[in-house]
Amino acid sequence: MTLKSLIRTIPHYPKEGVQFRDVTTLMKNPEGFRRAIDLLGERYRDQGIRIVAGIESRGFIVGAALAHHLGAGFVPIRKKGKLPAPVIHEDYELEYGLDRIEVHVDAIGKGERVLLVDDLIATGGTAEAALKLIGTLGGVVVETAFLVDLPDLGGRRRLEALGHKVFTLTEFEGD
Amino acid sequence: MTLKSLIRTIPHYPKEGVQFRDVTTLMKNPEGFRRAIDLLGERYRDQGIRIVAGIESRGFIVGAALAHHLGAGFVPIRKKGKLPAPVIHEDYELEYGLDRIEVHVDAIGKGERVLLVDDLIATGGTAEAALKLIGTLGGVVVETAFLVDLPDLGGRRRLEALGHKVFTLTEFEGD
Repeated sequence: MTLKSLIRTIPHYPKEGVQFRDVTTLMKNPEGFRRAIDLLGERYRDQGIRIVAGIESRGFIVGAALAHHLGAGFVPIRKKGKLPAPVIHEDYELEYGLDRIEVHVDAIGKGERVLLVDDLIATGGTAEAALKLIGTLGGVVVETAFLVDLPDLGGRRRLEALGHKVFTLTEFEGD
Repeated sequence: MTLKSLIRTIPHYPKEGVQFRDVTTLMKNPEGFRRAIDLLGERYRDQGIRIVAGIESRGFIVGAALAHHLGAGFVPIRKKGKLPAPVIHEDYELEYGLDRIEVHVDAIGKGERVLLVDDLIATGGTAEAALKLIGTLGGVVVETAFLVDLPDLGGRRRLEALGHKVFTLTEFEGD
């Protein structure tokens, strides 16, 4: 069993021509989910990570499991209007128009070591916005980790060009 | 430090007269998050739980951490239109109108032992709908666990009257 083989591909979702990589089939598999989180946990053990920040909403699943495994706290980075206390926000570009993510102003303290997590990196726009939010709060991002990389969409190169470290467990080419 | 003391109350959110119990302050606290998940983990250890199902989206945070801790798989129960593969759905009543949650038809197998998790139980409408979904798939729900109970809103009594077991880590009266 490889992690990649546990990820289901759904053709033409959410639209014609797109191969959607569905990580829910990995997550529901006890051995697969354990292995994915354990691999990330081994990488980040002894790195002094205090906070794992996860991007709504599949990033919550990977990030929260990893946070507990590392003995870190978990911080959600959410879509607009979902967090109850004061927030800062960043806008990022979609194919058509803009979207916004937010984080509580008191979610991360200055100098705290943060691992950013999401399920998948495509163009990297959301992750770049999340990295800006963490930086604005004074957090020190150790790395950004994903279950899945779609290298053809260039997200990893985009983040690395900005000086960020990126780690991915699997990749799917041809998207 | 008690778990309850780590949960922030936001007055008049999302509307006048409501005291919102914000669990993000517990989740971001490494000791608090670890303790909450470990307490749930001790309760469900050796119960043969194969799947932890979490309700979107704060239930993903609690549920995924607990799933990994127990060596179980994680299944997301999502709002309408968010899951990529075929789903079944249940509608439930809101203050005004209906809302819908969905789960993948192949998320849970017949006879699999499932723990349902969310961050908070208020009226219990969403949890009741989630329990129906799991039952329709043939899953056997061992218990439903929440970080926070708002007993004045009657959710626990509602689920227990239907024959379900409920466990909560903290409660806030006077809502």
